[in-house]
Amino acid sequence: MKQIDGGVTAAKGFQAACTAAGIKYADRKDMAMLYSETPCRAAGVYTTNLVKAAPVKWDQKVTAAGTAQAVVINAGIANACTGAEGYGYCLDTAKAAAQALGVPETSVLVASTGVIGMQLPMDRIRAGIAAMAPELSADIESGTAAARAIMTTDTKQKETAVQICLGGKTVTVGGMCKGSGMIHPNMCTMLSFVTTDAAISHELLQRALSEDVKDTYNMISVDGDTSTNDTVLLLANGMAGNPEITEDGEDYRMFCQALRQVNETLAKKIAGDGEGCTALFEVKVTGAADKAQAVTLAKSVITSNLTKAAIFGHDANWGRILCAMGYSGASFDPEQVDLYFESAAGKLQIIKDGVALPYSEEKATEILSQPEVTAIADIHMGEASATAWGCDLTFDYVKINADYRS
Amino acid sequence: MKQIDGGVTAAKGFQAACTAAGIKYADRKDMAMLYSETPCRAAGVYTTNLVKAAPVKWDQKVTAAGTAQAVVINAGIANACTGAEGYGYCLDTAKAAAQALGVPETSVLVASTGVIGMQLPMDRIRAGIAAMAPELSADIESGTAAARAIMTTDTKQKETAVQICLGGKTVTVGGMCKGSGMIHPNMCTMLSFVTTDAAISHELLQRALSEDVKDTYNMISVDGDTSTNDTVLLLANGMAGNPEITEDGEDYRMFCQALRQVNETLAKKIAGDGEGCTALFEVKVTGAADKAQAVTLAKSVITSNLTKAAIFGHDANWGRILCAMGYSGASFDPEQVDLYFESAAGKLQIIKDGVALPYSEEKATEILSQPEVTAIADIHMGEASATAWGCDLTFDYVKINADYRS
Repeated sequence: MKQIDGGVTAAKGFQAACTAAGIKYADRKDMAMLYSETPCRAAGVYTTNLVKAAPVKWDQKVTAAGTAQAVVINAGIANACTGAEGYGYCLDTAKAAAQALGVPETSVLVASTGVIGMQLPMDRIRAGIAAMAPELSADIESGTAAARAIMTTDTKQKETAVQICLGGKTVTVGGMCKGSGMIHPNMCTMLSFVTTDAAISHELLQRALSEDVKDTYNMISVDGDTSTNDTVLLLANGMAGNPEITEDGEDYRMFCQALRQVNETLAKKIAGDGEGCTALFEVKVTGAADKAQAVTLAKSVITSNLTKAAIFGHDANWGRILCAMGYSGASFDPEQVDLYFESAAGKLQIIKDGVALPYSEEKATEILSQPEVTAIADIHMGEASATAWGCDLTFDYVKINADYRS
Repeated sequence: MKQIDGGVTAAKGFQAACTAAGIKYADRKDMAMLYSETPCRAAGVYTTNLVKAAPVKWDQKVTAAGTAQAVVINAGIANACTGAEGYGYCLDTAKAAAQALGVPETSVLVASTGVIGMQLPMDRIRAGIAAMAPELSADIESGTAAARAIMTTDTKQKETAVQICLGGKTVTVGGMCKGSGMIHPNMCTMLSFVTTDAAISHELLQRALSEDVKDTYNMISVDGDTSTNDTVLLLANGMAGNPEITEDGEDYRMFCQALRQVNETLAKKIAGDGEGCTALFEVKVTGAADKAQAVTLAKSVITSNLTKAAIFGHDANWGRILCAMGYSGASFDPEQVDLYFESAAGKLQIIKDGVALPYSEEKATEILSQPEVTAIADIHMGEASATAWGCDLTFDYVKINADYRS
């Protein structure tokens, strides 16, 4: 597997465009469009929130049918809690894009992110679509510009791409995503768009995506709030020319590895760009009896406000980590837990068998002052493990979310 | 029922004292002692965190046996995650108090709150006990001073008391508590001590407490972190001289009402004094199919970081409330939800049938700028309801918890 430049336009046949539609933000691009030269197999995973945004309801239908050729995305307004009127606007968006691109409206996916409860300004959405269609381009730069256009409180655009070789052909998997707050995907308002030129059946494409999100997007959390709009779309147009993947064999396994690489990279970019955050906080639970236990423990620590505030303070407040493990609901023996902090500044064991070692607070603070910090908890019950990614809880998180609508 | 002055010394026969033991804080009292002239029936409810502090493990044994006469409390160090050494110190604390007071060590309850993982300085604990024993007093002021001594990041001491009449006798129920951060009782580090001179069997005393916490302490949350030390103790010394309550009749019902009044008042004082908070945030869910559904929905909203930050910003960001209801796990129809904001400044309906009304943002902001704010969600499924109490998420919450150990 080879890391390459680019994102959503890295795979053959994918094009992107973006525009300043003026939906909510002034002086920036806030709409993007993706297009594939040929129809794609389309897979999707979506928020488990009972309150689902209109575009989530629409996309669920499209990816269930299995074919798509374009995606229209807007930042600023989430089109969630907007009732029948909002769903109608979502359909109108798909129709306008279908007309501009000459494809069926049922092959146009729609994604929205931003404020909940406001209606989309459809005149601006339509004007945006009309402006983007003639600007579609397969350049790397157009993918990067699209990744920037879909940002809300994000501070960095997020994209990645890899290449593998399948049946003698070079297959590319690339993607872009956004997400910074209301991030606790189960499926978050994260939106992620992954494109590939692999030839693969719809069934295996959906299966690869559904399995992969469990270890990638669903293992990140910024604030514990599961959004109404979380969406990951995976489009495969087959233009790499590899023998179509139709069964669970070596090619499928390699494709899944490439997908994992892309999704894990994108998911970590979201966690590391959490609203107001100063550090990516990684939690590894090892020695678990089974995967479910490891996941429960890792996610409980990553979502603990007290632990996140301690990370912001570069404070080795390990008691909060043990506390969060204790209330997770998973069963373990607190007096068998070993805990380590690790970062580019080194690795330090903090507790052994549930009790503090005489570690150096100075060294711990040095380790915790890096931009990427890992806590490792070994619970000595078995061989299973899980990794979750989050970020610290900062003044700026509060500032951003006390002011968001204004 | 009559509200009266005082707290933990309001009921007949209860005395309190406190001292500056220098456990962690300088220049303030940080230990308290409660004592009853006669042995009490003792009931307790404790954290459900798998990681339990040493005093929780000790008190569970004492209240299971059912009799207690004294409580020793320290602030600054939680005596949690301290292993066998910490449990030994807890026993030593009970022994020292037993000796000073001339009671069996098995009738001495112990409670600790503060930093996790540090060992207690036993010389100071012993000196504190020796200093407090001769100072025990039934004055109202001694109860208030004790309530102040057990504070950590709390900004206000918390106490309340009520009187009822049972079998011609005046029965008093009074209490004090502390709690500000790591507050998500299931049973939180909240500590609460309720005393009564009622005569009541141990079985009914424990039952009254266990039932009551579900609607009081277990319905508050400051940060979603369930502490290792949460403890509510209820001591009844029978000195009111009422006919002993031994069955579930009118007297028991009246006692439970008084207990509810005390516990709900104390619980709301904790939520309203949440770390760094500027407002008490109350969430009422009405029209639920059953109580469990109402509780799940109310607690999901009260713990949503995004909603809490919006309350800090006085922002009627109702989409976050609907979002938090949606990911709660409870089933309901988002398009049947009515939502209101209410405070001393008035009441305003914000959404009807899941969609925003054309409400006045100015009026909404005025309502949300009060020190006590209520959100009411009617889900139109039945007659059940639940109320949860929390607070806003502020810069100061982050500041307090990034710095706590230093």
